[in-house]
Amino acid sequence: MPSETSHPAATGVTLILGGARSGKSAFGEGMIAASGLEPVYIATGQVHDEEMRARIDHHRARRGPEWTTVEEPDDLEGALARATGQERAVLVDCLTLWVTNLMMAEADIAARSARLCAALKDAKGPVVLISNEVGLGIVPDNRMAREFRDHAGRLHQDVAGVADTVYFVAAGLPLKMKG
Amino acid sequence: MPSETSHPAATGVTLILGGARSGKSAFGEGMIAASGLEPVYIATGQVHDEEMRARIDHHRARRGPEWTTVEEPDDLEGALARATGQERAVLVDCLTLWVTNLMMAEADIAARSARLCAALKDAKGPVVLISNEVGLGIVPDNRMAREFRDHAGRLHQDVAGVADTVYFVAAGLPLKMKG
Amino acid sequence: MPSETSHPAATGVTLILGGARSGKSAFGEGMIAASGLEPVYIATGQVHDEEMRARIDHHRARRGPEWTTVEEPDDLEGALARATGQERAVLVDCLTLWVTNLMMAEADIAARSARLCAALKDAKGPVVLISNEVGLGIVPDNRMAREFRDHAGRLHQDVAGVADTVYFVAAGLPLKMKG
Repeated sequence: MPSETSHPAATGVTLILGGARSGKSAFGEGMIAASGLEPVYIATGQVHDEEMRARIDHHRARRGPEWTTVEEPDDLEGALARATGQERAVLVDCLTLWVTNLMMAEADIAARSARLCAALKDAKGPVVLISNEVGLGIVPDNRMAREFRDHAGRLHQDVAGVADTVYFVAAGLPLKMKG
Repeated sequence: MPSETSHPAATGVTLILGGARSGKSAFGEGMIAASGLEPVYIATGQVHDEEMRARIDHHRARRGPEWTTVEEPDDLEGALARATGQERAVLVDCLTLWVTNLMMAEADIAARSARLCAALKDAKGPVVLISNEVGLGIVPDNRMAREFRDHAGRLHQDVAGVADTVYFVAAGLPLKMKG
Repeated sequence: MPSETSHPAATGVTLILGGARSGKSAFGEGMIAASGLEPVYIATGQVHDEEMRARIDHHRARRGPEWTTVEEPDDLEGALARATGQERAVLVDCLTLWVTNLMMAEADIAARSARLCAALKDAKGPVVLISNEVGLGIVPDNRMAREFRDHAGRLHQDVAGVADTVYFVAAGLPLKMKG
């Protein structure tokens, strides 16, 4: 039962930050739908097992058949360049899963963030990026978790820097931070 | 030493989200006091030991003798229906403890959330609900903790959907997200 | 690559809350720089090893040679009283490290918070205090971590109560909560 917020139409680059089960993906989907453009979904999550596959299929069914879905766990920059267009609105869900994949692959995350920002500046149509804010709890004991939140935090700053609009979503409600 | 915010009077249904020691309960108590109505406190925390009992008694003393206190760890919907009235303003503290109790009892939390929202729509006087935002840290290792934050997040979206006013409180300061 | 926010000039007492890698320190440094006053940096972090020393030296180089740096892990109240002046703007980075140090020293944190607030009221020039919001994740298993977030949350409420301006920073973007 999401809240009955009417969604602003996606234009330019939008970053949506929020916590777990905050309604951030549904808010992003609503912005894409309100644009009236052909919706494209770029999923960055990697399918490791049947449970994940079932969950992805369930989400796809929820979005409806008008969405084109692209699964791209690594080359998000390339997928974005291929997906954007004047007739299309692209949803990226989510940046935190992308950071996880880059860490697993031992990629240069600062360089990849710069490439992503360049791809966003070149986008030919609206792009909405979803990400989890993960830095507002106690410092994790686990070193990998600390590195993850550092990478995620820096990526959020980079993307927010090039975004036209930034929202923080809690309890399904958007709070505009930029734009 | 809470900040000296003057409190808006509670009217309709208000959800107050915030972190640990954010001042969210004190802000809610202030809204109830500002209404000028007879204050009723519904405590959802379960008393497991003497320490908890001492803490609850301490909080009760802080609120003052004009408050009626109801302890209801499970049937919050019923307690609300019985407590609300034109002459009374009800504070529920807090939804996250209620979710914990429902999980322990293996209740159907989605169904209970729907019942709670129905009770809020039927409320005959102002209701202020306090809850902890718990989804803005690193994904917990513990499966139960992950389920807890999923349940809490969905409940917050549901309640925010029927609430007239939603605040996010940090450092004792309210940020209005709806209303 | 921080966002290109133009910074308001520091005046009076400002509290800046944010998560890990949220850009809160850079935002605070920008406020100090925009004041045009002589910048003073009070570092509360304790140097336990070479890695910490290297990190502090790196941050100092980033701020530039015009900054005076004071390292004060314990007597922040005294350091503030000595540092503030009509010609100077002081940045305190950060309150959460100070709370950690006070806990290690088994200090009376409520009393120290009151002393800090008194020092802030007496400040002769602008002061910007940086702190981590740590209370928005799952309740930590670890008792020390729970106590830490209780102490930090109460200190934030105290300081926000005497502050003229309070910001919450996420993804490098400031959200004004007071002032």
